[in-house]
Amino acid sequence: MSECCRDVICEDCLVLLYIDERRRFVFKVRRGGRQGSDKGVLYHDSIIGLPYGSKVKLNTGVEAYVLKPTLRDLMERYFERKSQVIYPKDHGMILFLSGIGPGSRVIEVGVGSGFTTAMLAWFVGDTGKVYAYEIRTDMLEVAKRNLERIGLLDRVELKLRDARMGFDEKNVDAVIADIPDPWNILDAAYEALRPSGSFVAFMPSINQVQRLLLALHEHHGFEDITVVEVLSREYQPRPDALRPKTTMIAHTGYLLAARKVYS
Amino acid sequence: MSECCRDVICEDCLVLLYIDERRRFVFKVRRGGRQGSDKGVLYHDSIIGLPYGSKVKLNTGVEAYVLKPTLRDLMERYFERKSQVIYPKDHGMILFLSGIGPGSRVIEVGVGSGFTTAMLAWFVGDTGKVYAYEIRTDMLEVAKRNLERIGLLDRVELKLRDARMGFDEKNVDAVIADIPDPWNILDAAYEALRPSGSFVAFMPSINQVQRLLLALHEHHGFEDITVVEVLSREYQPRPDALRPKTTMIAHTGYLLAARKVYS
Amino acid sequence: MSECCRDVICEDCLVLLYIDERRRFVFKVRRGGRQGSDKGVLYHDSIIGLPYGSKVKLNTGVEAYVLKPTLRDLMERYFERKSQVIYPKDHGMILFLSGIGPGSRVIEVGVGSGFTTAMLAWFVGDTGKVYAYEIRTDMLEVAKRNLERIGLLDRVELKLRDARMGFDEKNVDAVIADIPDPWNILDAAYEALRPSGSFVAFMPSINQVQRLLLALHEHHGFEDITVVEVLSREYQPRPDALRPKTTMIAHTGYLLAARKVYS
Amino acid sequence: MSECCRDVICEDCLVLLYIDERRRFVFKVRRGGRQGSDKGVLYHDSIIGLPYGSKVKLNTGVEAYVLKPTLRDLMERYFERKSQVIYPKDHGMILFLSGIGPGSRVIEVGVGSGFTTAMLAWFVGDTGKVYAYEIRTDMLEVAKRNLERIGLLDRVELKLRDARMGFDEKNVDAVIADIPDPWNILDAAYEALRPSGSFVAFMPSINQVQRLLLALHEHHGFEDITVVEVLSREYQPRPDALRPKTTMIAHTGYLLAARKVYS
Repeated sequence: MSECCRDVICEDCLVLLYIDERRRFVFKVRRGGRQGSDKGVLYHDSIIGLPYGSKVKLNTGVEAYVLKPTLRDLMERYFERKSQVIYPKDHGMILFLSGIGPGSRVIEVGVGSGFTTAMLAWFVGDTGKVYAYEIRTDMLEVAKRNLERIGLLDRVELKLRDARMGFDEKNVDAVIADIPDPWNILDAAYEALRPSGSFVAFMPSINQVQRLLLALHEHHGFEDITVVEVLSREYQPRPDALRPKTTMIAHTGYLLAARKVYS
Repeated sequence: MSECCRDVICEDCLVLLYIDERRRFVFKVRRGGRQGSDKGVLYHDSIIGLPYGSKVKLNTGVEAYVLKPTLRDLMERYFERKSQVIYPKDHGMILFLSGIGPGSRVIEVGVGSGFTTAMLAWFVGDTGKVYAYEIRTDMLEVAKRNLERIGLLDRVELKLRDARMGFDEKNVDAVIADIPDPWNILDAAYEALRPSGSFVAFMPSINQVQRLLLALHEHHGFEDITVVEVLSREYQPRPDALRPKTTMIAHTGYLLAARKVYS
Repeated sequence: MSECCRDVICEDCLVLLYIDERRRFVFKVRRGGRQGSDKGVLYHDSIIGLPYGSKVKLNTGVEAYVLKPTLRDLMERYFERKSQVIYPKDHGMILFLSGIGPGSRVIEVGVGSGFTTAMLAWFVGDTGKVYAYEIRTDMLEVAKRNLERIGLLDRVELKLRDARMGFDEKNVDAVIADIPDPWNILDAAYEALRPSGSFVAFMPSINQVQRLLLALHEHHGFEDITVVEVLSREYQPRPDALRPKTTMIAHTGYLLAARKVYS
Repeated sequence: MSECCRDVICEDCLVLLYIDERRRFVFKVRRGGRQGSDKGVLYHDSIIGLPYGSKVKLNTGVEAYVLKPTLRDLMERYFERKSQVIYPKDHGMILFLSGIGPGSRVIEVGVGSGFTTAMLAWFVGDTGKVYAYEIRTDMLEVAKRNLERIGLLDRVELKLRDARMGFDEKNVDAVIADIPDPWNILDAAYEALRPSGSFVAFMPSINQVQRLLLALHEHHGFEDITVVEVLSREYQPRPDALRPKTTMIAHTGYLLAARKVYS
């Protein structure tokens, strides 16, 4: 038996219209709705009841596929962006450095448009929780809308608060920071973390890494420090002319991880 | 109130003894047990009842910390290795390419020592399942022991079976392959995947990528093909002399992802 | 005593007008000439007699510098481009793989717009020679103009010829190939090379590398095979916010080098 | 007609014995000499009179080749090493950033074992000159022996001198620095450079880059600043299993280049 929004496209399901590698559109199915593109229009009504993965035709006759969007599709094609975003390559490493998983309770500082919030909410699952701190009202609104649109808002507590004032939570598994001055929240993070919990910061410039390293060395409450950057390099998928794509994102940011200790 | 194996070290808990960046040991706490190192010995009895993160002393007086191991620590320091392993950098990308999360049902082909199995089991959580196929009995035994040691075996069904003969499962969210000839299981993967589900292969050589690309182009059942490699570059965490470590793992393998479609 | 075109800007000297990192213009000084930009105009007459390195003002009052162009500036800002070009990062490695230097005699196959020709001509000096083969008349004309403009044409013999038919030269130090099918000139290269001389090929796709490797293994006349790719990563030069530039050229091509042997 | 040490192996010629990719030995041919290896011994007498590139047999019957060493072979297999060395990937970029070539006059600061000195001497040719400053007598002796062994000493003036005291030369084309504190020689470099000449520094840590950037911003005598790092990634040359080598040198150092201006 096939299930709505998992196997079959129903009203209110999210769909990825895949025309080609560059033409990818995510939308919510609505009676009478239409998804435009420079290659033609897809009428929502024409796909209701189809299984995900079906081949469809735009009004121009151009062929395309209707896929079930992954978290990555949702973030790349369905989220509003009001701030710099973190990429899957970095998100993957954040997961492993922080040691979190289903059921984890995580504090996030610097919500921005909610990309990392969504990623954390996805992986902590129904039994986990993300406590997300942000100082800008407008950002928090964007993040809220983004999380709502993809159905993850109930796993998140959004808080309009300066993290330097401290966190409400205790005994969390990890604190993930994407703010310009992560060194200013070390005390707050230490207080909130469970024994041996992880602090992970994402920082665009090397100067931030240096300053955070200095602050950690002075703080004495964190050990097992790792600094790493992750690069992903895509290839054009042609078996007869395989080669990396000509340009790549050469830099997003550095990741620093450390663990709470009692010294 | 603090909980055994989460906050406090009790008997049978897993512990990471962190002496310095290179000296990291994971063990299970046993009455009367001892963990050796070239810097000295830690007596298990001496840490029972301590919170994770505590500073301890080896019998030589050398200071160290007892941390709660993350999945990464467990894989790197507690797993038996009988085969080439996949690294966190690749595991992170596999998660995002496959679109899985808590509750997902995933087929894995080519279990090896069980590293990817453990990663998948970790992130699908209690409500998900990993169906893990392997043709070598010895490997399957190693994987079983590894999964058992870290308490994830109940999320995994290990199967001694040639995946080319087909899978028992239907409607799974993703098929993850780490075998020399992933092109030989395309039909089986197609049958087992839910609509729009993901097929992801890890391959050390570029020739394998080419051959799989060719097979996918002939198969017509998969679209939205991505080929990517991930590099991670660690830095020595010294604020006064920050620089990448001199050597790095320059290559583990290429990742190829594609999605099931009806064409 | 200062010398024209080395220290002092005279008529007919080449000049790099450096306004900022992105605004860089190379031109030949002419009485009455003018160099335009979106930041203003530089009148050539205003710089005649100045030393290189002088600060100048555009007609808008914007400040800039007049520098002596390096080979790299000339290639990047003064050459006509009719074909894909090879970058300094690759040129540097070609120099070291081929073992050439001042006085070397080098065959180049696949002249294109003459970028590699210019680089080779620069480094073999007055006492060396570059024999440059190209099958397209239009390309050869572009290359000739480019070499003439920077004064290196006298070190080069341009030949409109299909290299697969063989070379006129014997006993050359190296053969450098930038053509789609370098495997087709192995015999010709072998004949032309001095004992132990180097064959170096630049190839955009991995398929070409594979095919050339196969051809070399069958040919038996070349050993000491190296395959390498070179990446260069630029940083934004801000001491307060040092970080790699966001995007980079992720791929130009692979380099393969081998040496002639008697087997 | 074939020439000694260019085409034919004579007494006192340099030879690269190439057994396989890892077994590479450079030596000077001497009557009665022998070159050992774990695969067997090569008697020098047996190769005198052979053309370079000839196949030879070790006393064990193992086959090998006698090649003419390139500059790279000489540096990697024939030089004494008493200090950290700069790699071809960096040397190539230094050439392009500095704008030098045959006939150039170059100051080098921080000679070390003479690797960069040799590279510069190679490319400035008979008509150029390298003025090489070093403060350690022992290093200067190593460099001298290395340069002498490969016949490039006559292009170099070695000077036991602290560069911070200033240089003897004027109007040089470039100053290349490989010292811990390149910011301390900016005034000296400025004095010695010709108008628009290049200053290039090689630095292992990012902190040095920052400090040099700050010093340049305060000095006002240099513009057109470039910061770059170069990575080279070797592939195992097997057409049936092409892949990057597992490990690579992930970091040697950063390069910073700037040009002298009058402001």
